[in-house]
This record gives sequence, C-alpha cells and structure tokens, in this order.
Amino acid sequence: MFNEKIYNLNNLNKEKLLSLIKSISPTDKKKYYKIAESRLNRLIKPKESLGRLEKFVCDVVAITENKRPVVKNKYVCVFAGDHGVAFENVSAFKQEVTAQMVANFLSGGAAINTIANSVNAKVIVVDVGVNADFGDDFLNNENFINAKINKGTNNIYIEPAMSYDDALKSLYAGINIAEKLIKEGANICSTGDMGIANTTPSSAIISFYSGVEPKMICGYGTGVDRKTICKKVMIIEKAIKHNIIDEQDPISVLAGIGGFEIGAIAGFIIGCALKKTPVVVDGFISTAGAVIAAKLNNNCLDYMFLGHLSKEKGHKTAVALINKKPILNLDMHLGEGTGAVLAMKIIEASMDMYNNMLTFDEADVIASNKNK
Amino acid sequence: MFNEKIYNLNNLNKEKLLSLIKSISPTDKKKYYKIAESRLNRLIKPKESLGRLEKFVCDVVAITENKRPVVKNKYVCVFAGDHGVAFENVSAFKQEVTAQMVANFLSGGAAINTIANSVNAKVIVVDVGVNADFGDDFLNNENFINAKINKGTNNIYIEPAMSYDDALKSLYAGINIAEKLIKEGANICSTGDMGIANTTPSSAIISFYSGVEPKMICGYGTGVDRKTICKKVMIIEKAIKHNIIDEQDPISVLAGIGGFEIGAIAGFIIGCALKKTPVVVDGFISTAGAVIAAKLNNNCLDYMFLGHLSKEKGHKTAVALINKKPILNLDMHLGEGTGAVLAMKIIEASMDMYNNMLTFDEADVIASNKNK
Repeated sequence: MFNEKIYNLNNLNKEKLLSLIKSISPTDKKKYYKIAESRLNRLIKPKESLGRLEKFVCDVVAITENKRPVVKNKYVCVFAGDHGVAFENVSAFKQEVTAQMVANFLSGGAAINTIANSVNAKVIVVDVGVNADFGDDFLNNENFINAKINKGTNNIYIEPAMSYDDALKSLYAGINIAEKLIKEGANICSTGDMGIANTTPSSAIISFYSGVEPKMICGYGTGVDRKTICKKVMIIEKAIKHNIIDEQDPISVLAGIGGFEIGAIAGFIIGCALKKTPVVVDGFISTAGAVIAAKLNNNCLDYMFLGHLSKEKGHKTAVALINKKPILNLDMHLGEGTGAVLAMKIIEASMDMYNNMLTFDEADVIASNKNK
Repeated sequence: MFNEKIYNLNNLNKEKLLSLIKSISPTDKKKYYKIAESRLNRLIKPKESLGRLEKFVCDVVAITENKRPVVKNKYVCVFAGDHGVAFENVSAFKQEVTAQMVANFLSGGAAINTIANSVNAKVIVVDVGVNADFGDDFLNNENFINAKINKGTNNIYIEPAMSYDDALKSLYAGINIAEKLIKEGANICSTGDMGIANTTPSSAIISFYSGVEPKMICGYGTGVDRKTICKKVMIIEKAIKHNIIDEQDPISVLAGIGGFEIGAIAGFIIGCALKKTPVVVDGFISTAGAVIAAKLNNNCLDYMFLGHLSKEKGHKTAVALINKKPILNLDMHLGEGTGAVLAMKIIEASMDMYNNMLTFDEADVIASNKNK
C-alpha cells in the first residue's frame, strides 16, 4: 500500500532515520536576526512598531538563511488517518466521516479549502491511514498523495496503536512529503489533520509528555458529551499505562498511543526543518505531532510557528510543551489546518512588508526627532 | 480649502448632522444571527468549531442585512492630520513627517501599502488637516482625497484643538468619504491614521471618557523617552481641564482635545454604519475616533470590528470604552491601519468560508454520531 516510489521504504531503517533527524541544527538567530533587524530598523516606521510581525520576519530570515526570503507559495498539507479507538464511540462522528472528508477536501467544499482559497494557499491531502479504499478518482488527483500505511490504527484501549515499523513509516512519509512539496516550490507550509477520534491519541501524547492528568486535557473535541469525555479519560489512562514500550523513545510513544497522521505531521515538520522551510503548526492534533518532532530533535522548534491557540481544552498544556506563542487566538477548534493557513497569511504579509517597504533613505523621510 | 463639492458644507449644520447620526439603529441580531447560524450549522464541520470566525459571519450578516453578503472589495482609509501640540516636542518625529508619510502612502512604500497589497485591500489617503500644501501630483492622484479643514490643529496645551465648526466638518468629511467609497464598491472598510503627535489628543480623549488618569494612559507612542511622557501627561491634564466647553457633547470634546483625523475617523465609522457596511477599527488613534462615534450614537458599535489590540499603553483602557474584543493581538503599534487591514482579511476569509463551504446535505457527509 505504501507508495515505495515516493517514500523509498527500502532505504528505511531506524538508525538512518534517526541520524537524519539528528542532523537538524538550530537556526543561527544571532547572525540572521541581526541581518533582518538592520533592514527592519531602516524601514519608514518607528523602530519595532510592527511588533510580532517583525519577529516573524526575523524567524523566517533565520530559518531560510536568506536575507530577503520570498514567502508566496503557501501549502497546507492535510494528513488523514483513522483510529481504532473510534469504535469506542469517543467521537461525535462515525469513522466513515474521515474518508468522506478526504473526498470533500479534494472536491473543494470543506472549511480548509474555502479558507485556503481565500488566502491563496494550496491544499494537499495525504492518506496516511484512512480506513477506506480510494479509487482512481483520488489516486489521479494532483492534490492527493497516497501514503497509506494501514487502514486505521489499532484500538489503543486494547493494544498499541501501531507497530514500531509503522510509526517509522509515518514519520518518513511526512519527511518525504515535505521534501516533495518544497521541491515543487512551497516557500512555507502548514500542517493540517483529519481523523475521526484523533483528539484521543493527541490527548494521550500531551498527557504523557506533560505529566498532566488526562482529565485536565480531554475536551469536547468535535462535540461529545460529559459521559464520553469520562470514557476518553479512562481509555487514555489505560493506553498510556499499557501501550508504551520505551518511554524514552518518542517513536515508541507514537507507536503506542499515537496515530498515522500524528506521526506524519511530526515527520512533515522534521522535513520542513531539514529543508530550512518555515512550517506553521495548526491546533491540538498538529501540536501533538509537533511535540513528537521536538522530542526527536528539539531544534525542530526553531523552524515552527504556532498558527493559533485552539479552543480544545488541552491545547494550552500542549502549547507549553513546545513553548511557542500562538499567532492567532480565535476560539477555533476544527483542525484541517484552518487556523494555520490564516496565520500563514499573516506571516506572508509580514514578509511582504519587509521586502517591499521603503527605507528612510529611499523615501527621504526625516528619521530623527524633535521640532525646532 | 475644504472640498465643498464632495462634502456639501453649505448643507452642514449641527442639527442636521446630529439627526443623521441619531438615525443609526442597532443591528437586528436576533433575526440575522439566526439566519447566519442556520447556514453555519449545516456546513460540513462540527457545530461552532470555527469559533470567532462564525461570530464574524453573524455580525457581517446582521450589519449588511444580507443572508449571503460578499466581502471582497476591501478599503483602508488613512486619515492624515497635524497637531499643534507637536510643537511641544511630544513626539519622536518632526511634524513635517506627516506630509512626508502622505507622500509615501501615495507612492506605495509605507507599511500600510505593503500590508494592504498583501491582502488585496485598496489604500485611500485623506488629508483632513496636514500642515502642508499638496500640489497637483497629490490632488490628481485617484487614491488621494483632499478634505483639508485646516493646516493642523491648535496646540491643545494652550487652547482648544479646533473650533466647534471644524469639529463638525471633520465628522462630516468622514461620513461623506465613507459614503463615497461604499458607492465606489467597498464591501468592508478599515480606519487608519497618520499624524505626528496624535497619541497625545487620543490619550486625552481616552482619559476624559474613561476617567483613568493620563499617566496611566500615556505610552511611548512612536518611541519617546520618560521625560517626554511626563510632559505629555501634564499637557493632557491641562488640556482636559481647560479646553472642553461642554463635557456632555462629544463634538465639544473632539473640538477641545481632539484632532481632525480623529474626528474624520469617527465620522467614517458613522458613515459606514449609515450605509450598513462593516468597518474595522485599527489601533489606539482609531479607537479614540470610535469612542467619539459611540458617544454620539452607541448603535455605531454594532457596525464595528476591532482589528487588533495595540501595544500602546492606553489601548486596553480605550478598548474597554467600546467593549470590543480585538481580532488580532500582535504587539503592533504603528497605526496607518496596519492592524485593521490584517483583521479585514480574517473577516473576508470567514465570509469566504460561509459562502463557499458545502452543507452536510450537499456533501453527503454523515452529520450524526456514533458507530454501530
């Protein structure tokens, strides 16, 4: 099932993958912030008056190692996967909805499509583990990538989500897709997710790494009742206790209590970091992926922006794990990349400001103070 | 100087203006929120999962009284005026910079141009009181409106900022410009400002209406030192004490301690409300204008969005006066409309979502819950 042509599974082994991930260095903030600030401070505006927009510029300059990077080709990559735990009725929607939403992403009628169109971002949909067979209509769609690892994870209430090898595959799929999109021309990427029941494994990951009890993390997801939340909490507690083989190994955590799309999101972030391309993390599910990426190599954080603070209860705890300040805070909690694409537009606007504003010299404006 | 052709000064009298302003009714939230929500809740997403984006949709539907309003033609109107108080050295920049920045707005190299271009918004520059004579280059520029009332206000440390008639004119100019732009095709408008020293009158207005002491309001503006802030505080205290003739009359407050661009921003908001068009208020200066508009008719608030929370110290106090939740919070404090245009893009994206997403019926997605 896994598309070997793209993802080169034959070459995949744990040591090679880990050494690739370890090769990511921190950005050279000292050098590149200075370069960016020297231009920012000559633009016709009071110093630092554009606040965080100027910080976004500094980070993009540092990430890309480019004095005047252009951010125009914006991609949002929606990773879709199913979850065995959905059969415990932890979601307000049936598992079939994951596949139906993949179809909607490709036909253009979902939230992410309309918002991405509005900001002129391209939507790529990746099947990393949907419990459905997609026909040629999908496989021939240029915006669809088949990287299916399995038809949904196992039910984490009963057993680990996936094999260790499948966890490696999900990471590797994400890395390779990032590489492919950046080769295609992406200047900046956003993560997105689709997977009925995926707040459950995401909450498990966040609870495991933060040490915060599941009952303080689990929220209403797509709209479940209190009874269902209690069940989610119980499932997560059991899954953390029984499914993780090696607590020191993020890949073991991903295999034990994660999901294919969560692993692929982690890999996608790693792939963007490897290619020195800014990546905007969406909400709760994407942040769980970001945590896995950061646990594999903390330097990944330098390449990430956090698109928004989700309304999902556990997101604040998740955000603390990656220590990022959200760009937006609009009570969104849909996933799909909807918050991240809006934030990506803010970053693009910041770069347009940086690249296109005149300097005091160019504009012949008096930069100094005081009337006589 | 005042362009009578456009602003029809002959017809201007206080009673007529006040009765026009009083004619603004509140939006019919009960009726139009229900209409908007009935569609929002049928779109293929969990209910309310797009958070504040859905609230923006409800408000735009209520403001426009249109079930499916299109928000495409985005205008930001930058009102420029000078301030006599600049000669007290309350700003880090010389007064000449106001005129220089007007030139930059028209040549396209200022922050507002680059950010507005990035989100495809049109920049209109209005001279309501710049202390300079603009030549034919300006007057013939289609993005420039000459509505000059006077060459800068009086120094509020010594005397009221302007005559009562000039305050009326500034409001009327704003109203008429809103009408003109909406006639031209604007679906949504943003306010912007330019005026060296204009945080001083804005702080005075916010202090007067909030009852909060000037020293708790005055911030660093474009980057002044602590000594200058002390001077600003002293000037504002004196101005509030001596310059306002009738404390019950917002026009008297505007005349006493305001500015031409602040009055025009208030008028612009009123004009948008009269034409049932959403208007996005920018930062500190624009909020001072919004306060004047709200004091003239509280119903104006229904037509406003607050683009962002400025980093300027007194903005939180100002925001409390209009009781609006900012859309963005990015530590910006430049003015020009830079925060508002970014927020306008978020509102446009919300409307694109609302208008272009499929419903559960159209997409044939199972909206109900539970696996069997």
